Amino acid sequence: MSRFAPRPEPPYYAVIFTSQRTDGDNGYGAMADRMVELAAQQPGYLGIESTRDDSGLGITVSYWRSSADIAAWRRVLEHTAARNQGRAQWYSHYELRIARVERAYGWDRADGGAPGDGGA
Amino acid sequence: MSRFAPRPEPPYYAVIFTSQRTDGDNGYGAMADRMVELAAQQPGYLGIESTRDDSGLGITVSYWRSSADIAAWRRVLEHTAARNQGRAQWYSHYELRIARVERAYGWDRADGGAPGDGGA
Repeated sequence: MSRFAPRPEPPYYAVIFTSQRTDGDNGYGAMADRMVELAAQQPGYLGIESTRDDSGLGITVSYWRSSADIAAWRRVLEHTAARNQGRAQWYSHYELRIARVERAYGWDRADGGAPGDGGA
Repeated sequence: MSRFAPRPEPPYYAVIFTSQRTDGDNGYGAMADRMVELAAQQPGYLGIESTRDDSGLGITVSYWRSSADIAAWRRVLEHTAARNQGRAQWYSHYELRIARVERAYGWDRADGGAPGDGGA
């Protein structure tokens, strides 16, 4: 399965979640897997990209059709419980940003050449 | 130095760059450090967050005052050269999205309690 989200036509919305994990797993891995699974079942979900380095600094970006879809996902009880547990145990710091995607480009080595926009 | 970007008042802009690295360094580390340094000198630069896991999947989000600032940063010659080298050598795939940040929240364990928005 690709770790890149699909490339729908903008505009759409992104939730940018940057976080520093505390030490130890403490159930985090299972919760994170479950949240990815649960998010994918929500109306307006478009995709997710997520990575974390050895120091525990992670960035997860989930993509949604509208800000109303993001608000609805926030109200899913199991998601609310996971957020509470995140503050109680899993994270030492996080930043959350909600942003409207206006333009998007992609490039793959197999396709070769320059993308329309010239990349990053 | 904090690996989290500051929290300016929205609206502002985010460049979300998700990439898969090819094997080997091939000068990538030095270029990445230089681009972070160079970006920080540009007008409208607000901050950057970046992480990459052991499989080479990375997400870098840079923050800017306006989309015009992002366009100007794209035209910096050394940045253009780095993008070209990225496609020639460093990346196997990437996705680039430009998004307008509409809301932002943060939380730190030292401050305790719930943030205004309840987090992710």
